[in-house]
Amino acid sequence: MNTISNIHTLKQELKSKSGSIGFVPTMGALHEGHISLIKQAREENDIVVVSIFVNPTQFLAGEDLDKYPSKMLADEKICDLAGVDFLFTPDINTMYTQDEVLIKAPILRSYTLEGERRPGHFDGVLQVVCKLFNIVNPTNAYFGKKDAQQLSLIKQMVENLYMDINIIECEIIREVDGLAMSSRNVYLSQDERLQSLQISKSLKIATKKIMSGINSCDEIIGYMENTLEGIEIEYIAIVNRQFEKIESIDLKNTIILVAVRIGNTRLIDNIWV
Amino acid sequence: MNTISNIHTLKQELKSKSGSIGFVPTMGALHEGHISLIKQAREENDIVVVSIFVNPTQFLAGEDLDKYPSKMLADEKICDLAGVDFLFTPDINTMYTQDEVLIKAPILRSYTLEGERRPGHFDGVLQVVCKLFNIVNPTNAYFGKKDAQQLSLIKQMVENLYMDINIIECEIIREVDGLAMSSRNVYLSQDERLQSLQISKSLKIATKKIMSGINSCDEIIGYMENTLEGIEIEYIAIVNRQFEKIESIDLKNTIILVAVRIGNTRLIDNIWV
Repeated sequence: MNTISNIHTLKQELKSKSGSIGFVPTMGALHEGHISLIKQAREENDIVVVSIFVNPTQFLAGEDLDKYPSKMLADEKICDLAGVDFLFTPDINTMYTQDEVLIKAPILRSYTLEGERRPGHFDGVLQVVCKLFNIVNPTNAYFGKKDAQQLSLIKQMVENLYMDINIIECEIIREVDGLAMSSRNVYLSQDERLQSLQISKSLKIATKKIMSGINSCDEIIGYMENTLEGIEIEYIAIVNRQFEKIESIDLKNTIILVAVRIGNTRLIDNIWV
Repeated sequence: MNTISNIHTLKQELKSKSGSIGFVPTMGALHEGHISLIKQAREENDIVVVSIFVNPTQFLAGEDLDKYPSKMLADEKICDLAGVDFLFTPDINTMYTQDEVLIKAPILRSYTLEGERRPGHFDGVLQVVCKLFNIVNPTNAYFGKKDAQQLSLIKQMVENLYMDINIIECEIIREVDGLAMSSRNVYLSQDERLQSLQISKSLKIATKKIMSGINSCDEIIGYMENTLEGIEIEYIAIVNRQFEKIESIDLKNTIILVAVRIGNTRLIDNIWV
């Protein structure tokens, strides 16, 4: 594996190769969720590139940018073992300059749900993903369904700006007890870790109720609220693939999303029906 | 020459070719200025693509979008004769959808001069140029120095977003009497056409004064104001290549810009010292 921090060096290296490029952009602190993306990229491409960059422009003031978990040595080892060809670790001064051309996420779709709680967050996400896409020029880029709204907006950016990239949607990877993998899970105390199980449980109950024939979204949300009792709910939302709120479940086009706060940690999860 | 309006058809056609691609994006109403860009693209590339698209997002409310000159048949003939391989003429509904991912020009550099008079104009320019660049995927893209600030911001976008495109800066082409070529020149009445000569004359006088050793920008601007007497001046500005205002002429890094209104027509011109 070749670890590269210089943008132009990476571009040159990739230009000198031929074959498909699979790309997994990350903010490091790699867990099983990332590893499954990397493995899929490895299976489906000639060259695999992983980036590790904790992107400041997608954090809001007061968010956990400074304490975002970092474990570069372990991450490098993980990538190496997973068969990554290029690990790209740019530093902030090479990625950003003063008074930049910015990307603005679509107003309606980016200021609901996550965007409503984190205004401007998706502008920063799209900005860094746009840069990374143009640097790596991947054939396929891999994103987890856990950040469902992010995934949807990245797909939209690729469509709107006519980028030649396949966005591959990958399943959520969970701990054995159901908690969706997240770099932020390390923030949880033992008690909070136990409490967090209610999140995936609420989604399981939603699925069960849908299977039993209930299709009113309000009713489903009611069951989920019961399951999440005692936890600070930021939102429960049932939307279609375009992230428009829906009234009744469509078995081919529904995403159920939940965001909660446990102690100081914000956690999100979802299922795609 | 192959005239194509469908985005995916053009992408497919271009992917099936090999060799360098020279690209000249235009809004049609082609004149000698455009033709010189096309000729240079023809000399320097294997494949030449010209686009004609009157981009609504770069016009402000009340500007001349509806009456912007159009002469598609003549334009097609011009491109054909100039050896263009692909003329790309998308329609608005294929270029834009609802609630799009947007490009935002850099705040400081895009809200002075043209951007101050036309707030949001450069956001629209960068948005369409970004789309066109991703559709055509050119090796070299050709822009005239006449739209100096636009050229500078497009170069910045390519740098900030790490696009793999060479931006080629091309000289301003003028009528024999000195008026810079512009699709908007057709708006001028005979009297206005005569009056418009003062614009290039003011730039010539600026050059002459600089040659004679004057290097105070205020003094130069004074001479230009005298030359433009009787014309509504929007701005005269002396800046460096980064579009920062300067106090005294730097013989290697100065652009002198002028914007005026003659009747209902807005005209701009400049020289690069």
